[in-house]
Amino acid sequence: MFRHNNRAASQIRPVKITRRYTKYAEGAVLIECGDTKVICTASVADKVPPFLKGAGQGWLTAEYGMLPCSTNERMQREAAKGKQSGRTMEIQRLIGRALRSIINLEILGERTIQIDCDVIQADGGTRTASITGAFVALYDAVESLLAQRLIVSNPIRDHVAAISVGIHDGSPLIDLDYSEDSTCDTDMNVVMTGGLDLVEVQGTAEGAAFTRKELDAMLDLAQQGIMELISLQKKAFAADQ
Amino acid sequence: MFRHNNRAASQIRPVKITRRYTKYAEGAVLIECGDTKVICTASVADKVPPFLKGAGQGWLTAEYGMLPCSTNERMQREAAKGKQSGRTMEIQRLIGRALRSIINLEILGERTIQIDCDVIQADGGTRTASITGAFVALYDAVESLLAQRLIVSNPIRDHVAAISVGIHDGSPLIDLDYSEDSTCDTDMNVVMTGGLDLVEVQGTAEGAAFTRKELDAMLDLAQQGIMELISLQKKAFAADQ
Amino acid sequence: MFRHNNRAASQIRPVKITRRYTKYAEGAVLIECGDTKVICTASVADKVPPFLKGAGQGWLTAEYGMLPCSTNERMQREAAKGKQSGRTMEIQRLIGRALRSIINLEILGERTIQIDCDVIQADGGTRTASITGAFVALYDAVESLLAQRLIVSNPIRDHVAAISVGIHDGSPLIDLDYSEDSTCDTDMNVVMTGGLDLVEVQGTAEGAAFTRKELDAMLDLAQQGIMELISLQKKAFAADQ
Amino acid sequence: MFRHNNRAASQIRPVKITRRYTKYAEGAVLIECGDTKVICTASVADKVPPFLKGAGQGWLTAEYGMLPCSTNERMQREAAKGKQSGRTMEIQRLIGRALRSIINLEILGERTIQIDCDVIQADGGTRTASITGAFVALYDAVESLLAQRLIVSNPIRDHVAAISVGIHDGSPLIDLDYSEDSTCDTDMNVVMTGGLDLVEVQGTAEGAAFTRKELDAMLDLAQQGIMELISLQKKAFAADQ
Amino acid sequence: MFRHNNRAASQIRPVKITRRYTKYAEGAVLIECGDTKVICTASVADKVPPFLKGAGQGWLTAEYGMLPCSTNERMQREAAKGKQSGRTMEIQRLIGRALRSIINLEILGERTIQIDCDVIQADGGTRTASITGAFVALYDAVESLLAQRLIVSNPIRDHVAAISVGIHDGSPLIDLDYSEDSTCDTDMNVVMTGGLDLVEVQGTAEGAAFTRKELDAMLDLAQQGIMELISLQKKAFAADQ
Amino acid sequence: MFRHNNRAASQIRPVKITRRYTKYAEGAVLIECGDTKVICTASVADKVPPFLKGAGQGWLTAEYGMLPCSTNERMQREAAKGKQSGRTMEIQRLIGRALRSIINLEILGERTIQIDCDVIQADGGTRTASITGAFVALYDAVESLLAQRLIVSNPIRDHVAAISVGIHDGSPLIDLDYSEDSTCDTDMNVVMTGGLDLVEVQGTAEGAAFTRKELDAMLDLAQQGIMELISLQKKAFAADQ
Repeated sequence: MFRHNNRAASQIRPVKITRRYTKYAEGAVLIECGDTKVICTASVADKVPPFLKGAGQGWLTAEYGMLPCSTNERMQREAAKGKQSGRTMEIQRLIGRALRSIINLEILGERTIQIDCDVIQADGGTRTASITGAFVALYDAVESLLAQRLIVSNPIRDHVAAISVGIHDGSPLIDLDYSEDSTCDTDMNVVMTGGLDLVEVQGTAEGAAFTRKELDAMLDLAQQGIMELISLQKKAFAADQ
Repeated sequence: MFRHNNRAASQIRPVKITRRYTKYAEGAVLIECGDTKVICTASVADKVPPFLKGAGQGWLTAEYGMLPCSTNERMQREAAKGKQSGRTMEIQRLIGRALRSIINLEILGERTIQIDCDVIQADGGTRTASITGAFVALYDAVESLLAQRLIVSNPIRDHVAAISVGIHDGSPLIDLDYSEDSTCDTDMNVVMTGGLDLVEVQGTAEGAAFTRKELDAMLDLAQQGIMELISLQKKAFAADQ
Repeated sequence: MFRHNNRAASQIRPVKITRRYTKYAEGAVLIECGDTKVICTASVADKVPPFLKGAGQGWLTAEYGMLPCSTNERMQREAAKGKQSGRTMEIQRLIGRALRSIINLEILGERTIQIDCDVIQADGGTRTASITGAFVALYDAVESLLAQRLIVSNPIRDHVAAISVGIHDGSPLIDLDYSEDSTCDTDMNVVMTGGLDLVEVQGTAEGAAFTRKELDAMLDLAQQGIMELISLQKKAFAADQ
Repeated sequence: MFRHNNRAASQIRPVKITRRYTKYAEGAVLIECGDTKVICTASVADKVPPFLKGAGQGWLTAEYGMLPCSTNERMQREAAKGKQSGRTMEIQRLIGRALRSIINLEILGERTIQIDCDVIQADGGTRTASITGAFVALYDAVESLLAQRLIVSNPIRDHVAAISVGIHDGSPLIDLDYSEDSTCDTDMNVVMTGGLDLVEVQGTAEGAAFTRKELDAMLDLAQQGIMELISLQKKAFAADQ
Repeated sequence: MFRHNNRAASQIRPVKITRRYTKYAEGAVLIECGDTKVICTASVADKVPPFLKGAGQGWLTAEYGMLPCSTNERMQREAAKGKQSGRTMEIQRLIGRALRSIINLEILGERTIQIDCDVIQADGGTRTASITGAFVALYDAVESLLAQRLIVSNPIRDHVAAISVGIHDGSPLIDLDYSEDSTCDTDMNVVMTGGLDLVEVQGTAEGAAFTRKELDAMLDLAQQGIMELISLQKKAFAADQ
Repeated sequence: MFRHNNRAASQIRPVKITRRYTKYAEGAVLIECGDTKVICTASVADKVPPFLKGAGQGWLTAEYGMLPCSTNERMQREAAKGKQSGRTMEIQRLIGRALRSIINLEILGERTIQIDCDVIQADGGTRTASITGAFVALYDAVESLLAQRLIVSNPIRDHVAAISVGIHDGSPLIDLDYSEDSTCDTDMNVVMTGGLDLVEVQGTAEGAAFTRKELDAMLDLAQQGIMELISLQKKAFAADQ
């Protein structure tokens, strides 16, 4: 298979991370992974959801949306339809779990960090780009809390990033774009920490089922891609100092 | 860790499959996995969703629900709340994908098989019990189509079943009940075919992230459990002849 | 008219009451009236609705639902549709009123008893079966409150049960199944106490209007059926001691 | 009990029926029963609901609403809340059934008569006033179809009217106003035809249950009141000629 | 253009204002402008919305609705549809702003005045009739607060009234009825105070855009009409003394 | 009053128009007016709404949304809330009317142009920026139809652009940013064509009502600003050739 721009099977798309992309949220990042572009913001509110009232800890939650024209065929606006699709809910739950896995909510105190990931252009991998970008927004929001001395130590325990992998004609492929995604038999999203431990593994056979060996090949590829993404997150933080 | 009823770490809960549990749907199964009880039905409609009109193939879709009193604390009724939760949508999408992976929709013809999984008592593993039970309901619905000569060959390609696995204190554990689920660091749902290929792998770190080695141990355990479940599905079919 | 199983015009269908059918709710009953099967639960919450805050009394409310495959033709799931039908609301309001008529809400204290009636198989008379079964679930929930000494005296004043009656070809018929219901000109649901007083009378001419004489004949038949149902409720309580 | 304006126990409130109250609907009636005022319209559409397509008959359906300020305490607007209450649904289903009982839908042809009952001022008995008034609107809509020769014979088989009755301190009382309604132990709505057959009997014990003897006394009173209402409907038709 | 009843281009339709049209709300007015008829009520609640808690001031808000049969073609009931249309929301926001512009919310104290405008018959200009009529209802509600000595001075600073104007064949026309509205290129709603200052100007080119000169001609006409309406409001107040 | 960046009362904020901002929609524009940033897309669908079926003309409709973090305080996501606010509906109706005023829908043929305006950063004037930007997106979508020879002549009759004006301390001010907006007594949005005719005038007194003289001063200022915006639209088109 020839990939767009002669990309190798193990090569992720060019990534661009723009911090402070908008001016209000404490963290506001535009992440571009090839033609997939997502605005990820992290904003802080001085309250927690009812089930945590008085528990002496904070919370982090995420929402996800796509602009109607972010896709090839215009999608119906969820606000107009009056409800979020199952896919949207599934993705925003995934983003929330991924980021909660690397933050110490006790140190955060009785606050909620709200992550918003809004896709302005979609070309495959929007949920993984959202996680990778939202981590940077979270980092900036935490920096802002530290700078204001609202928290005294950093609640972030590790980096977190995500990538998609798939099986095409029996071989593993990383960071699928939209056209590749539809030709793959299996599609897997992997979320890992900076310590290279697994946070989420979500593999789905869209056509033929997959073998343990294929699963292993996909996980190897994913690990390599996530290492690159984490080094790009670090570069984005360094650029700023 | 001592498990309820001295269950071993690798031992699944007792399973009971009752076919023809209710009288209307073409397939209607009560599956009991320990204290988890789910009514799984498969009903056939002579139409396909709009996106498949004229495509010469069928469709299979699934819905999932819980009776308000199926859980320890009564849950709000989704019909009264006016919407399905993200968790519900995620589960019913999973059930649908799992069953579509083993059915040939061309052979099915322009029909829709509607799977309904309704939990009457929940004690962990409701989504995996739903998949394992829904396969039996699907089998019965297909038998009914064959008996009426509405289809000429069997569109089911293979068995499919599902089980949960977790990591507790660093060791893998199969088929978590509700109390175990809340003490595990990692929770993984695995869906496999009769040929022991993977259809879905959904692993989530609830506390600490998990290693590749732990992932492997969980998958080994899951495979063993799914082999047992598939032999129980076979036994249920045989019992009837 | 020949009734299914040679049932006499004044004969109710076989009734089976299974207490403790599920394990979480304080009262949990499966009631089977012929092929109509309803799970009725009564669960207790330590709060009252806003309009009763501080009024020193309790509340009882009911919800009703049907599994999508409980009927001959699969019905759309109300949770997926996003709203309950008018029929559902009417029935759950009726169940709530019927049970409130025999309970002393002052003795109950500031608690709410939530009744849930979920039909797993429908063959006519689901609302009356729900009332008859829910009374047993309520009884068990109250026993549990008494056993825990949360209340000191029994707030239940009397039994309550319900039955449907109709006019077919000018003659009264009791406990209509689905096929009979559609051929009757008049359909009436009657709710009575153990003291044989009326709690609800809901008669509807579906075809020709009915006379006072026909109303009287239906009420006579209903009273006889309800006496039987109440003796079956008593037998269910006795069986357990 | 002294009733407002020294009304006797068996005396209905003054009724005023204004035909052609608004100008668009084929039938448009303001009915005033004491201080209860309802606008009842009947409008004709040249289509039937999907379940009657091609069945060669018509349909009649009803909707009911209350202006937010029609009650003593302003009620929340159902359009703003985004759903109709259970009470609203129950009432509009009752109105529809009552009027369908006296119309021959085959003669109506493939048309739908839409009844709308909108309460502008509520002082008890809004559902029964709606039925009595909607009959007059229906009559006018049918007259309009006849005048345009869209139908050749009159599909209305008989008059229909409705009244509420109750038990207060053991004695029956007719046509309860709002303050009386809240002091009655039993509240019953009765719908009868011009031939004095019963169309609906809906009796509810709000406090103590009621006896067969009380039921009979209420039905006697209701019959007398409905006879008066039907003669007032006839007077309204005559006035116009 | 010949207007209905030979009305001149600058002549408003006959206006009739009926105070105390219904008995519960503190202010309850029926306003008739030609064939447009709107019930406008103002009711007082002893609370303010959350964003004003403790702010030492009151609030005024408005809702608007149309009876399904108020229009030529029956409209779908918004309560049944489950949401208010964009048009409804736009109009009720306009009514609220118009009335808030002439009331001193500090003097009102921690209360909310709820305006409800319900159209019973629509023939163009329902939003402007609503504003003109709602002012009278507001006046009556304020009189009631003063009479009960709940407020010590009158918070109403000035009259407010509204009228529509349009451009037909290049000439301005006032107070468009429904048939005129659809033939006008421009439609403008103007809200003015008794001091003849502007509160709202909402002009919309439905066909050709309009010139500044046409805008001026429309505003001149509107001012004249609003002066008449305000004198009719005054007459309505005087009639009562 | 000193404006941010020493802007003069009659000076609009710096405007930047980026065409082809995203890759799927036929027209896709990022418009920046000071710190207000809106993505405006125009996409073409080969169908018309039901009310135009067979009418031989096209349609144009618009939707508007704000990213949750586009504002100073994070707003609730409308898709999550399950409905669009009255403000959102009002704005999207305004955008649709404004663009329909300058397009010949007959020439467009049986197609719908869907405008989407999504605010990524809001600092006042989002609705006017949306109109000015959406015109550019519409132009590009029409160019694409012409290039594909799907239409043979250009249906766009004229430019259209919009600006806000206000009265601050008695003097007119153009293109209010968020902080200015809240201190102005009057806020007016003006939409004009390239021929300097008026399409919409929406003036609202937020505090004191405004005089005809103030209205005139605002309209003069608006006209000047719109002339500038239209010349910037032209520059954007020219830049591309």
